[in-house]
Amino acid sequence: MPSRDTPDIASRRTALPPNSVGLVTPQEMVFDTPLELEGGKRLDRYHLVYETYGTLNADRSNAILICHALSGDHHAAGYHQLSDRKPGWWDACIGPGKPFDTRKFFIVSLNNLGGCKGSSGPTSINPENGKIYGPDFPIVTVGDWVNSQRRLGEQLGIRQWAAVAGGSLGGMQVMQWAIHHSDAVRHALIIAATPKLSAQNIAFNEVARQAILSDPDFHDGRYQDFGIVPRRGLMLARMLGHITYLSEHSMRERFGRELREGRIRFGFDVEFQVESYLRHQGTSFVDRFDANTYLLMTKALDYFDPAQEFGGSLAQAFQASRSRFLVISFTSDWRFSSARSREIVNALMEVRKSVCYADIRSTQGHDDFLMPNPDYLDVLNAYMEQVAEEIEG
Amino acid sequence: MPSRDTPDIASRRTALPPNSVGLVTPQEMVFDTPLELEGGKRLDRYHLVYETYGTLNADRSNAILICHALSGDHHAAGYHQLSDRKPGWWDACIGPGKPFDTRKFFIVSLNNLGGCKGSSGPTSINPENGKIYGPDFPIVTVGDWVNSQRRLGEQLGIRQWAAVAGGSLGGMQVMQWAIHHSDAVRHALIIAATPKLSAQNIAFNEVARQAILSDPDFHDGRYQDFGIVPRRGLMLARMLGHITYLSEHSMRERFGRELREGRIRFGFDVEFQVESYLRHQGTSFVDRFDANTYLLMTKALDYFDPAQEFGGSLAQAFQASRSRFLVISFTSDWRFSSARSREIVNALMEVRKSVCYADIRSTQGHDDFLMPNPDYLDVLNAYMEQVAEEIEG
Repeated sequence: MPSRDTPDIASRRTALPPNSVGLVTPQEMVFDTPLELEGGKRLDRYHLVYETYGTLNADRSNAILICHALSGDHHAAGYHQLSDRKPGWWDACIGPGKPFDTRKFFIVSLNNLGGCKGSSGPTSINPENGKIYGPDFPIVTVGDWVNSQRRLGEQLGIRQWAAVAGGSLGGMQVMQWAIHHSDAVRHALIIAATPKLSAQNIAFNEVARQAILSDPDFHDGRYQDFGIVPRRGLMLARMLGHITYLSEHSMRERFGRELREGRIRFGFDVEFQVESYLRHQGTSFVDRFDANTYLLMTKALDYFDPAQEFGGSLAQAFQASRSRFLVISFTSDWRFSSARSREIVNALMEVRKSVCYADIRSTQGHDDFLMPNPDYLDVLNAYMEQVAEEIEG
Repeated sequence: MPSRDTPDIASRRTALPPNSVGLVTPQEMVFDTPLELEGGKRLDRYHLVYETYGTLNADRSNAILICHALSGDHHAAGYHQLSDRKPGWWDACIGPGKPFDTRKFFIVSLNNLGGCKGSSGPTSINPENGKIYGPDFPIVTVGDWVNSQRRLGEQLGIRQWAAVAGGSLGGMQVMQWAIHHSDAVRHALIIAATPKLSAQNIAFNEVARQAILSDPDFHDGRYQDFGIVPRRGLMLARMLGHITYLSEHSMRERFGRELREGRIRFGFDVEFQVESYLRHQGTSFVDRFDANTYLLMTKALDYFDPAQEFGGSLAQAFQASRSRFLVISFTSDWRFSSARSREIVNALMEVRKSVCYADIRSTQGHDDFLMPNPDYLDVLNAYMEQVAEEIEG
């Protein structure tokens, strides 16, 4: 990806790209008002880590909320230090001159509850007993996340978001906002998402969870007490995830059946390039992610089904929404295929909502929502220019 | 599947279905002539377990060889005893009045080398040292299997098979026969197969292998010495495999998003029906399959690429073949899609071979080749009637 520097370049970096938001510092906000969770439990005290890019305008009308996906976090754009190898996960879309233009918008990006990058979650301290939460951190839902995001917005003085945007699991949070709190969302940008997981989606999540849960180093989730992490399980979960994030085409283009050493060696070490890639993705993930958080995130995915409380009708779920919508899917995405996005679009049209829809011709699969695909950026740019004009007008 | 009795019926069974081959007994053949393997190793002495159905005719012209897939074995049809819960794995296609009609054909079905159902493999005794092979059983290829199948045929007095047939990995063995030993194969029936695995196919295999290899109970493959099996790893491998054997449609039809207890329970026990199904498939597989064999079978899949020694041209690979071909694919198969079968058909047509091709409209996915889909049975029936007429004529 052009937006990602190679390690070599990074080590020599003395300045950041001109269209970067530059150096950013995460902030933290503590909440003392109890949060009732959909699963029946309660968080009496919790904190959220977040970043902001751009400047909030005088009437607080230019704020955009970014929601992250399964393994994402608050660091969506820019760099924490000059030596960072990579910018934030959505740097392709956030910055001066980019779709979420920091010259026009004030952008907020947080680490969701249950995460492992600074917000309250399994790796943080349980204020009730001073110990690491681990498996005692409650299961959280997309609805719980949106409720915590509302509080964050309130504390930042934002009554209404100009837009709430996210891809994949992030797009589900956008839907939740637009269905239950649409007064606070002028535009809902739902990217590479689905109205609910299919049985096959749940099946992949279940295999990933079983890989973690059955790892002897998991210790019922208390692995931190043992000074260990369930590396094998988390690695398998990530390897499996990666297969579903990439299209078959992109795997073929990138790796084909190429042998790493040029010939078959008749053994169980890495032979094909694709094996090497997957093992690398798996092992590097283990160093930066938490197994309990992975379990929580997959559960939030499985449970999401906003139509359920509306008699199974997604259209009815959107009926009372006052938001306007942009829905984007990618032709090569087989995890959440274009057909799933069209379910969202059809539901919105059935209840006569304002909706733009783009099915972006793509080759990379589900991961395309993170990539600087020119057609994708054009669609986002055009839409966000309109959003900006409403604010300026 | 209508052909599979429920446990209740089985326990009350006093007779077998009239179109069953009936009660069958596996046979064993020992080979003392060393077999040179493609990986460079050698088996000095080995044995193969097989079953036969029907009667070999006087001129030995009515023999059919059945090749099994990843987790298959020699028990392709009939019952070992009245109380068997299920018949052999291809009972839908083998028996009196079925496509592989035992009133007309003499059918041979074996457990491949490296298997775990009686033929020489990781669970059998290494004659060199009297110990269980375990991980010392050499990696075998589709080419090795076909060479061992040739010897079995010779011992049975069969110089030419009327047909060699198989689905999935079995279809690869059929291709190998038709490319390298076509004088011995009048008809090659290649079902739900692919000329070689895609990067994505290899990726799924690699995750399955890593699940087994990283299981602490694997003990470098010597788990039998420890009186244990790598249950967790083998279970994960099978769960993952099952996702790829079923179509997304059939998963939706069978399980949807149904909750086993009717409501979300916010935990990591089974919640959705599809999770229950996968865990059951995983745990029951562990009781009947061997982890080292699973590793070997996936490697044979990965390595298969018959075009390679013909400059990458599958057409050139088939150029000298004297076999005639039937190729069958299934529209809902995403593991080895119809497009992969069309690669085989196009290569055969390019070098003007006799080939019939049927893309069967189906809903179950890769597993369809095991099912009594009427269109599928019709195509097989029509083709095999021709094969029978050649013999009788």
